[in-house]
Amino acid sequence: MKTEDLKTVRRFVKEHLAGDTEQMDTLAEKPSQVYDAFRETGLANWWLPEELGGRGLSLEDSVEVVNEISYGDAGVAFTLFISVLTTSMVQLYGSDVLKARYLEPMAARGSFCATLGSERNAGSELDKIETVVSRDGDELVVTGDKFLSTNTDFADFIVVVARDADNPEEHHAILIPRDTPGIEIVKRWDVIGLRASHTYQVRLDECRVPKANRLAGSGLRLLEIGLNASRILIATTAVGIARRIRDHCMTYAKTKPFRGGTLLQSPVFAQKLGQMEMLIDVMKGHCLRAARDYDTVMSDPEAPAIFARQGTLKTALTAKMFCGQAAWDVASVGSEMFGGLGYTNDHPIGKLVRDVRYVSIVEGGDDVMRDLLFNRYVIPVPRRS
Amino acid sequence: MKTEDLKTVRRFVKEHLAGDTEQMDTLAEKPSQVYDAFRETGLANWWLPEELGGRGLSLEDSVEVVNEISYGDAGVAFTLFISVLTTSMVQLYGSDVLKARYLEPMAARGSFCATLGSERNAGSELDKIETVVSRDGDELVVTGDKFLSTNTDFADFIVVVARDADNPEEHHAILIPRDTPGIEIVKRWDVIGLRASHTYQVRLDECRVPKANRLAGSGLRLLEIGLNASRILIATTAVGIARRIRDHCMTYAKTKPFRGGTLLQSPVFAQKLGQMEMLIDVMKGHCLRAARDYDTVMSDPEAPAIFARQGTLKTALTAKMFCGQAAWDVASVGSEMFGGLGYTNDHPIGKLVRDVRYVSIVEGGDDVMRDLLFNRYVIPVPRRS
Amino acid sequence: MKTEDLKTVRRFVKEHLAGDTEQMDTLAEKPSQVYDAFRETGLANWWLPEELGGRGLSLEDSVEVVNEISYGDAGVAFTLFISVLTTSMVQLYGSDVLKARYLEPMAARGSFCATLGSERNAGSELDKIETVVSRDGDELVVTGDKFLSTNTDFADFIVVVARDADNPEEHHAILIPRDTPGIEIVKRWDVIGLRASHTYQVRLDECRVPKANRLAGSGLRLLEIGLNASRILIATTAVGIARRIRDHCMTYAKTKPFRGGTLLQSPVFAQKLGQMEMLIDVMKGHCLRAARDYDTVMSDPEAPAIFARQGTLKTALTAKMFCGQAAWDVASVGSEMFGGLGYTNDHPIGKLVRDVRYVSIVEGGDDVMRDLLFNRYVIPVPRRS
Amino acid sequence: MKTEDLKTVRRFVKEHLAGDTEQMDTLAEKPSQVYDAFRETGLANWWLPEELGGRGLSLEDSVEVVNEISYGDAGVAFTLFISVLTTSMVQLYGSDVLKARYLEPMAARGSFCATLGSERNAGSELDKIETVVSRDGDELVVTGDKFLSTNTDFADFIVVVARDADNPEEHHAILIPRDTPGIEIVKRWDVIGLRASHTYQVRLDECRVPKANRLAGSGLRLLEIGLNASRILIATTAVGIARRIRDHCMTYAKTKPFRGGTLLQSPVFAQKLGQMEMLIDVMKGHCLRAARDYDTVMSDPEAPAIFARQGTLKTALTAKMFCGQAAWDVASVGSEMFGGLGYTNDHPIGKLVRDVRYVSIVEGGDDVMRDLLFNRYVIPVPRRS
Repeated sequence: MKTEDLKTVRRFVKEHLAGDTEQMDTLAEKPSQVYDAFRETGLANWWLPEELGGRGLSLEDSVEVVNEISYGDAGVAFTLFISVLTTSMVQLYGSDVLKARYLEPMAARGSFCATLGSERNAGSELDKIETVVSRDGDELVVTGDKFLSTNTDFADFIVVVARDADNPEEHHAILIPRDTPGIEIVKRWDVIGLRASHTYQVRLDECRVPKANRLAGSGLRLLEIGLNASRILIATTAVGIARRIRDHCMTYAKTKPFRGGTLLQSPVFAQKLGQMEMLIDVMKGHCLRAARDYDTVMSDPEAPAIFARQGTLKTALTAKMFCGQAAWDVASVGSEMFGGLGYTNDHPIGKLVRDVRYVSIVEGGDDVMRDLLFNRYVIPVPRRS
Repeated sequence: MKTEDLKTVRRFVKEHLAGDTEQMDTLAEKPSQVYDAFRETGLANWWLPEELGGRGLSLEDSVEVVNEISYGDAGVAFTLFISVLTTSMVQLYGSDVLKARYLEPMAARGSFCATLGSERNAGSELDKIETVVSRDGDELVVTGDKFLSTNTDFADFIVVVARDADNPEEHHAILIPRDTPGIEIVKRWDVIGLRASHTYQVRLDECRVPKANRLAGSGLRLLEIGLNASRILIATTAVGIARRIRDHCMTYAKTKPFRGGTLLQSPVFAQKLGQMEMLIDVMKGHCLRAARDYDTVMSDPEAPAIFARQGTLKTALTAKMFCGQAAWDVASVGSEMFGGLGYTNDHPIGKLVRDVRYVSIVEGGDDVMRDLLFNRYVIPVPRRS
Repeated sequence: MKTEDLKTVRRFVKEHLAGDTEQMDTLAEKPSQVYDAFRETGLANWWLPEELGGRGLSLEDSVEVVNEISYGDAGVAFTLFISVLTTSMVQLYGSDVLKARYLEPMAARGSFCATLGSERNAGSELDKIETVVSRDGDELVVTGDKFLSTNTDFADFIVVVARDADNPEEHHAILIPRDTPGIEIVKRWDVIGLRASHTYQVRLDECRVPKANRLAGSGLRLLEIGLNASRILIATTAVGIARRIRDHCMTYAKTKPFRGGTLLQSPVFAQKLGQMEMLIDVMKGHCLRAARDYDTVMSDPEAPAIFARQGTLKTALTAKMFCGQAAWDVASVGSEMFGGLGYTNDHPIGKLVRDVRYVSIVEGGDDVMRDLLFNRYVIPVPRRS
Repeated sequence: MKTEDLKTVRRFVKEHLAGDTEQMDTLAEKPSQVYDAFRETGLANWWLPEELGGRGLSLEDSVEVVNEISYGDAGVAFTLFISVLTTSMVQLYGSDVLKARYLEPMAARGSFCATLGSERNAGSELDKIETVVSRDGDELVVTGDKFLSTNTDFADFIVVVARDADNPEEHHAILIPRDTPGIEIVKRWDVIGLRASHTYQVRLDECRVPKANRLAGSGLRLLEIGLNASRILIATTAVGIARRIRDHCMTYAKTKPFRGGTLLQSPVFAQKLGQMEMLIDVMKGHCLRAARDYDTVMSDPEAPAIFARQGTLKTALTAKMFCGQAAWDVASVGSEMFGGLGYTNDHPIGKLVRDVRYVSIVEGGDDVMRDLLFNRYVIPVPRRS
């Protein structure tokens, strides 16, 4: 990444996300104008490959970008990067036509897309997905209820994971333009944190698309592959939030009177901050490492085949788990740092605690991560660390 | 306590606090009518002694009451019991005249009172209190800024801890009727949790009261003594919240599909709930034990002298610390139990996490508790457990 | 308990267990003479009822006694109290003849007995016990392999839990005198901690006893009932060990130079010790509470029937779980307190860490405890705390 | 590193360290013959630079080597790598003559050296070192007591950190050949774990060496710099131990009967192992990252100056802290995994728990690490992660 890009991101964070956390913590009806501002930096959808007109930043670069943005606001960061889950599936397993028709505009316009995977009863167990796709001549017809999906309402297109009507053991991933009849936004969720993001419950009622809109391969496998990038970036938001918490602690300690001096001189405070910094350092290093693992595969001409064989990357799982847990520790300690003030919305710590909680919840809770890790990377002896 | 009283409390919780947690989670401008409903049970200010027209329930009974109410809503519970901090100081160290004039109406009318102790720069270090009381003939004049105090706006009276203008080493506790000129509610805090409660920033501008409104003894010591009861009941709210979380988990697990059955059959779920139940059981037992310690002193005719010597009760400290920490563990696990739904306000877990956080913050954070415990109960060898 | 008894115990600890922890940490071939010394206090098997010639101390008293002894050495404490597991089964479900023949001598002589429950493949799942008891005329014949049992070699008698040869769904508890042919001590275990205790692997080869040596009721249920007292006292040893660790910390800190003063003045040290003291206080209180629960049942004339209905006491489970976990926290922190010295056997902390570990392992690991707690005390709504 | 070297290490571990952990857990009087066996692989002191006749492996390679050896036995690993603390100081700050005279033989013979830094009252606070070095003509005379130093007795030479007799604010690092008169081994410590290693208390009584044996720069700074490599490799031993524990769990679970199948099928077991694997993966990645940071400096021609400016590497601190904490978690869970068997020395888990404990203790406990991290890497804003 060019240093200039990172500077641009920092400037964006400073101008649009710093200082006014309150604004980021409302459920604005429309995507906030902050997204327009980011688009103007020219970095929207920064990871899209250059051959599709994108900026072609690596996932390692993306970790730097997301770390900065989530320092400002994790909900804004999430909104800006979560399309990667969808675009990476299309990029790896979509036809050239689909890529040209759907990814190029995203690069050009900085717009959004969404994946509709999990359902009310298929959260931790994706093989329970009940949304159905059936064939009708040259068309595919998709019907079902999706519980939680981000960005859907203002997406250019969505990718839906659905069960094959004829072969219930099989799942497909189908690209559906947003303006396809039958896509109904049931409601927007009133989420606990990341309130600058938009997450919806969606009903799909006989949505029709051409057969060619099916991505190649098993829908469940594709979803698993798509989650590699997004899980690593979700982990990264934990780094940004934890850094923000640490810095709030330092700022507070500088002027908080404590035993003749300020809190900054308190040995107990030093211990807490030292422990935080350790966790942050390990978190950040691990996100970068996971991203490099991802980039190694993606830069291989055989990436689609490699990912199809491997599915979920080990470090994508461990990054999300570790960062979710470590940042929760940081947030728990942080939430006790500001006395009574920290129990009010006059201080942003409450928001940061709510924000960070999502890391261990979305795209697979820790129980699911641990199961995956155990089955994929502990049972097979050579895959153990 | 008569079994009937506990039934009354449970009925109140069921009728007024169950089901509609959302209503409890707004910052209603006026104290919610739920407080009127509680007054109608005849149990308002249940701990006031019978000789003052109260119900005379012990603190052990109070633990049962608060456990039940906070199962419904901890903010309502806090509002209903926090006057005990103030009334216990008046009861122990106020003149008979003050008791008759101020506590009897509270017993009769079920009204509120408030203590104004900590200040912006005197949170963990109460000896930094800067509010000043000076003598002017037969009157005391109190001036200063108090940072966080609950119930103040609609209290009958307040007790203010202030530094002696003439002898800055000394602090006094002064009873000031709410309608005294000079009490200015600067603002109501927008708190993170306990949002059915009302906590204010208050300015005292030359509030004048008769000399007789001073409670006997050091203001700091009195505050410490008053905090015994309230800390034990704050700890108790953690029990109620933790029980509520556990029950939400059980309710959810009964119908949540999981691997061919429901989540209730999951061995991993069983482990989590077993651990929660253990913590809840220990928490509850410890609150009751702390309350019995308190009742033992209070039932002694020499209670004022005993408390003046002893100050903070050991078990009041350990109850608040332990319950705050244990309930945070329960809440942390609970917050990951409901998948994506648990990250929305469609499920009450988010509110419960916010509510429970206060236990480790108000009336002394854990750092303060640990210091007190160390200095009072570890350094002196015979006071160790 | 008479104050004098507790003084006696403290004197015993001071004379025989203090100062020379090294001696307690070897696997002495014979039960150490320390047990003779304890017998001389007249307090051996202090819990045996007065009608059988015992001292008749309650379990609440036993908590005080075990707390003191395990402060000196948990292995000695374990050896001295673990017979209660066996005697309580005989007391509750043995015939008067058995009680007179086997418990009275134990009261008189201060001797030992043992229970042989778990097996190599029936540790966490006792219903997998494969030791078999068959009928042969007026005799019972017991054969099987028992994995870990304490005190067996020098016990007066043992109680063996065995499967019914004719009805494999049924288990019995059989009292077998130690000198019965067929009891073979396969080996003494080289245990990690509690090295003053003696735990054996035992083979039973056609051990014959009269039919009347069978205790009344299901063997598995009886075992569960017997474990109530021993689990509470195992939990109590955690209190004693934790107190010892705390006191070692305080002793060390008094003279350890630290930043111009001693470690005792370090605010970070104060925080650690405050947290330890909190845990110790809660642990101790909970052991006493569990013991009172036990005593309440035992003092009821219907105790055998009540226990047969109820099986494991809730607080016996929560006490062992909580104290095992809390004391492990204390020990973990303690083990980092003494710098490099604490990594050598010149300091007793290493032994204390090894000793305390058993609390979460013997008589049911925490996984087993959590399962029991969940099934018995969470699933049935009215039994929740 | 050539793949062959790693294979050699693995073969060494398999032949000499696997299977017979008991032998590694005694305090053998002489350095075990296992060290001769390692020397025969040609890899002894593998990190010494090629220009001094060494193998020139990087620290990143060293992490791989130490990870493998400590999987076998951490005490053997520690003995084999801890000379790096000393050699790196000599390599960076010793004269060419010293390097030729002392490092070349170590490369050729695979022998040992030792650093004598901390003292009884200068453990966490190295500036309290009281060992004194004075000038006597062309000689330096060193006198003092060193508390804990590894490998000293059989070292070729030692480096002693001592206070300047004339300028008590200054410290020096002096190279002293082992056969110098006045080096007295006071005793070998009976350590809790790492019992294949040899750690001594040492008295230095007027040890005389030429002035040229002083390394260039402040002794305290040099020590800090030398600790970079050793702390990273100490952290790495935590990875090896944690991997060993995980593998013991897997081996045990494969045959341990559990609910109709084996423990391997238990969902609760899967959760525990998934969590372990996550921690191991993060630990290992972080050690490699810290090692790369170190290698980056070391491969710079200006390495001595860079390290003199920077002192302790951030990732060396965070690696030791994180791995010590994470591996303690792994060990704590592991120690409860094997039921009663795991509380005996028939299973190696007890040894592994004792071994791993040293990571958070030697070369600076976590309190010291946190303080360093806070002062060096949190206070200065640009150095924050």
